[in-house]
Amino acid sequence: MKFINETLDVRTRDRFDVIDVTDSVREFLYRNNVTNGLLIISVPHTTAAVTINEAEAGLMDDILTAVKRLFEPGGPWKHNLIDNNAHAHIAASFIGNSRCLTVINGSPKLGRWQRVLLIEMDGPRTRHLELTFIGE
Amino acid sequence: MKFINETLDVRTRDRFDVIDVTDSVREFLYRNNVTNGLLIISVPHTTAAVTINEAEAGLMDDILTAVKRLFEPGGPWKHNLIDNNAHAHIAASFIGNSRCLTVINGSPKLGRWQRVLLIEMDGPRTRHLELTFIGE
Amino acid sequence: MKFINETLDVRTRDRFDVIDVTDSVREFLYRNNVTNGLLIISVPHTTAAVTINEAEAGLMDDILTAVKRLFEPGGPWKHNLIDNNAHAHIAASFIGNSRCLTVINGSPKLGRWQRVLLIEMDGPRTRHLELTFIGE
Repeated sequence: MKFINETLDVRTRDRFDVIDVTDSVREFLYRNNVTNGLLIISVPHTTAAVTINEAEAGLMDDILTAVKRLFEPGGPWKHNLIDNNAHAHIAASFIGNSRCLTVINGSPKLGRWQRVLLIEMDGPRTRHLELTFIGE
Repeated sequence: MKFINETLDVRTRDRFDVIDVTDSVREFLYRNNVTNGLLIISVPHTTAAVTINEAEAGLMDDILTAVKRLFEPGGPWKHNLIDNNAHAHIAASFIGNSRCLTVINGSPKLGRWQRVLLIEMDGPRTRHLELTFIGE
Repeated sequence: MKFINETLDVRTRDRFDVIDVTDSVREFLYRNNVTNGLLIISVPHTTAAVTINEAEAGLMDDILTAVKRLFEPGGPWKHNLIDNNAHAHIAASFIGNSRCLTVINGSPKLGRWQRVLLIEMDGPRTRHLELTFIGE
């Protein structure tokens, strides 16, 4: 069994941002010479999230608009009494801090439009992206 | 270590639909003669999602009603300038395109009311359901 | 390959509740003497969810407030014609019944503020927490 864990730094550019990290995911798998298994893509953060969807510029904005509409930045959240980012924590709790991918012959099995997206909701910051492979 | 990946076709019946795919999941595990491990159930799509919940007809409608209320099909999303399914992409980003199950003695460890559900939000289409097992 | 699955009981205290189960997760890994691998933390329930975020008291209330705002307990959901907990099913479908963690040298690789949280939305009940490790 092969087990590989690496952390990459990803710089986000604004308070709200979506970064396509798919190329880094592919490069990690290639560099580590893996064949088949599972890959977990996660962030060790509580105000950012990971998802898989299309990296179309308008859509990436829409995802952030939906976060703002549903989770109201600056709203009367209790966590905003001690910080100013409750919306980001709540959204990250709902969306999740990780996604799973199947790896076949060294490549992530992604659909035609699927990309791995890091969702920043309290940036700009340097975020850690954790890549964990288990398999062969 | 056993690693098995299969793709099944699932036909959805309407623009919005929920399909219970639990029987296909069980049959996949049985046919492949596995014992213990992890199963990832995913879709390689960006306008459909996978979740685990009860397959009660009213509830399956409620899940779709919630998607429509929260993500407004036909709304002023930027992605709707180039397509008409922004709601489906955003909802899929939030809900996720995969779920994980523990497999014990060849069966998925599901609670009494848990079923594996494919959520269609831009159908009807033939969707691919990816089943990936890692274990023994 | 090591494969370990255990079920712990967690008592929730109210209809809506968030319980920090991180210490139980750490203790499970320590007691089973594992090193590196993946851990799935899940519930076999359809009206509770699992997430990873900060265990700050105000924020835990905010997460429950967001569930109530977005999924309207007692609302005109079809599932409420046969039961009274549609909100909990729908929210659990969106948030998810499981999260994944990387395990390194016997410890879950959690960020500084990350804790594993069980979200109760139809309690109080005794809930089952499933911990599944695969690795070495």
